[in-house]
Amino acid sequence: MSKELLTWMEPALSLAMPALGVLAIGLAAATAAQAADPLPSWSDTAAKKAIVEFVTRVTAEGSPDFVPAAERIAVFDNDGTLWSERPLPFQAVFALDRIKALAPQHPEWKEQEPFASLLKGDLKAALAGGERAVLQVLMAGHAGMTTDEFTKIVEDWISTARHPKTGRLYTEMVYQPMLELLAYFRSNGFKTFIVSGGGIEFMRPWAEKVYGIPPEQVVGSSIKTKYEVRDGKPILVRLPETNFIDDQAGKPVGIHKYIGRRPIFAFGNSDGDFEMLEYTTSAPGPRLGLIVHHDDGEREYAYDRKSSVGRLDRGLDEAAQRGWVLVSMKDDWRQVYDAGHR
Amino acid sequence: MSKELLTWMEPALSLAMPALGVLAIGLAAATAAQAADPLPSWSDTAAKKAIVEFVTRVTAEGSPDFVPAAERIAVFDNDGTLWSERPLPFQAVFALDRIKALAPQHPEWKEQEPFASLLKGDLKAALAGGERAVLQVLMAGHAGMTTDEFTKIVEDWISTARHPKTGRLYTEMVYQPMLELLAYFRSNGFKTFIVSGGGIEFMRPWAEKVYGIPPEQVVGSSIKTKYEVRDGKPILVRLPETNFIDDQAGKPVGIHKYIGRRPIFAFGNSDGDFEMLEYTTSAPGPRLGLIVHHDDGEREYAYDRKSSVGRLDRGLDEAAQRGWVLVSMKDDWRQVYDAGHR
Repeated sequence: MSKELLTWMEPALSLAMPALGVLAIGLAAATAAQAADPLPSWSDTAAKKAIVEFVTRVTAEGSPDFVPAAERIAVFDNDGTLWSERPLPFQAVFALDRIKALAPQHPEWKEQEPFASLLKGDLKAALAGGERAVLQVLMAGHAGMTTDEFTKIVEDWISTARHPKTGRLYTEMVYQPMLELLAYFRSNGFKTFIVSGGGIEFMRPWAEKVYGIPPEQVVGSSIKTKYEVRDGKPILVRLPETNFIDDQAGKPVGIHKYIGRRPIFAFGNSDGDFEMLEYTTSAPGPRLGLIVHHDDGEREYAYDRKSSVGRLDRGLDEAAQRGWVLVSMKDDWRQVYDAGHR
Repeated sequence: MSKELLTWMEPALSLAMPALGVLAIGLAAATAAQAADPLPSWSDTAAKKAIVEFVTRVTAEGSPDFVPAAERIAVFDNDGTLWSERPLPFQAVFALDRIKALAPQHPEWKEQEPFASLLKGDLKAALAGGERAVLQVLMAGHAGMTTDEFTKIVEDWISTARHPKTGRLYTEMVYQPMLELLAYFRSNGFKTFIVSGGGIEFMRPWAEKVYGIPPEQVVGSSIKTKYEVRDGKPILVRLPETNFIDDQAGKPVGIHKYIGRRPIFAFGNSDGDFEMLEYTTSAPGPRLGLIVHHDDGEREYAYDRKSSVGRLDRGLDEAAQRGWVLVSMKDDWRQVYDAGHR
């Protein structure tokens, strides 16, 4: 029952017989309880209970586990944790689209790997060159322009490109339960940060609108930039040079570099998040680590130990002994995406 | 007149004759006006007017210059802007104290420059080796331990070391007008950041307590760190390798890297802040840049164009044409330090 409806009914109820009044009070109480659930897309399972119990505990003033608001730092991986990463990590799709868009200006790419294979659509052959090939692709499309120009390129892509399976915009491939969780943490005085292996400048242009996370709370991988004054106008030029890789053991380094304070809560989905969870949960005081387990082939994708993207192997083995909570997408989430966009 | 005194007088006033009542109302209004001045240590000069006018303008909803709270980013240099930097930048004193503390474990330093000269107290000879010598000194005392160990070293030093001229703790050498300004900006929805050439890990341990600026809003120079698990405990080891120098043209790079959004307000004091002010103020929309001019040899220090520390030369030449406001420590500040500690 909506609040509007209750308000509308109020005059009628006040004139009605006492029994109806009692009924109305019962209805209002039920409505309030439902409205008060900040995590409606989470099933009432152990995962949700662990989260709510943790937040209640660290925010209860006077409790031995109380954590002052300034120290309530919560970190979230992005790919596979806040939004999907299948069939390809979305930034990889963006990088491929960049190569296609730039190809007319680079006729030499027809003969040059990894570009030649990429342009023929043979991703496997293109990536045979390993990390060097990936870097070449990234640098070709991500560097050489100003930061403002790159932001515009990202904004244009993210507002038009669509997921091959669902036909949704990529920003509509964010997980509804995680949006609720971010809001729930913030309403309890937490500061929410993204700590992703993805490009920091790829996420910042839309993270605030989509996740409510401002640019200064996005940590990610980056290339170097250089300050220049061009025609009297200050600009930052993106250089084809890696600055920082925010993945695996790089995640605690990135957290320390950008946040400067150890989080008390971390949420990941793959072994790329292992060290972030380890760093977050291996210290005194109340701490919680969670892992999204992609076990829902019907509503999303099912993958873990053997996946090339988002592999979760060591995390599955060690979650129990480390006290990390595995979140089953299938059993713990009532819905995966925002129903409004389904 | 204090609020306590007014409260205490209240019963008497209520019984007194009407004329006294009118007087009391007049007094109360004057007290309220004084209490309402968020910048009492600033003289009523052009600098203060420019600041208040700017803040009023960007926070007035419906005004063409209104800036949403999320975009109200204000950046402040630290050395010479938020606290003093004389006779030596305080982190240089810390670095020298580190060398003295470590000398017993390094008998070879007696023969090895720049350490030999430093230990003899000959700073000039020690720094004859230029940037390389400075880096050697920094790395010797700042690297090789865990980040937690370094934080403890900084905390111990900052809570005991005292300024050679005033005898105050260094954290009592912060400028009272700037403390008021930081609070004023925050109470108007701004997010305040430090953007300093100083070490990020040297500032973070005390910046929150002293300035109200949390670690995640401190940008500075840094060395690299490495994640390790030692005896089952995750640690970050500080490596003797420069990660980032947040000075001059590095400041806009640092702002972009850490904040990811162009500030609308910048406050510096030396030509090391020139590019930060240029980047902040050279874009559309309301923007303000200010420079502390150290012209108060009596209450602090007087230095600008020819100083080796905190040189202000180009900034003095170009402030007027760029619309930057020069703040005269002598004329624009009623007091320099917190009177309670004088």
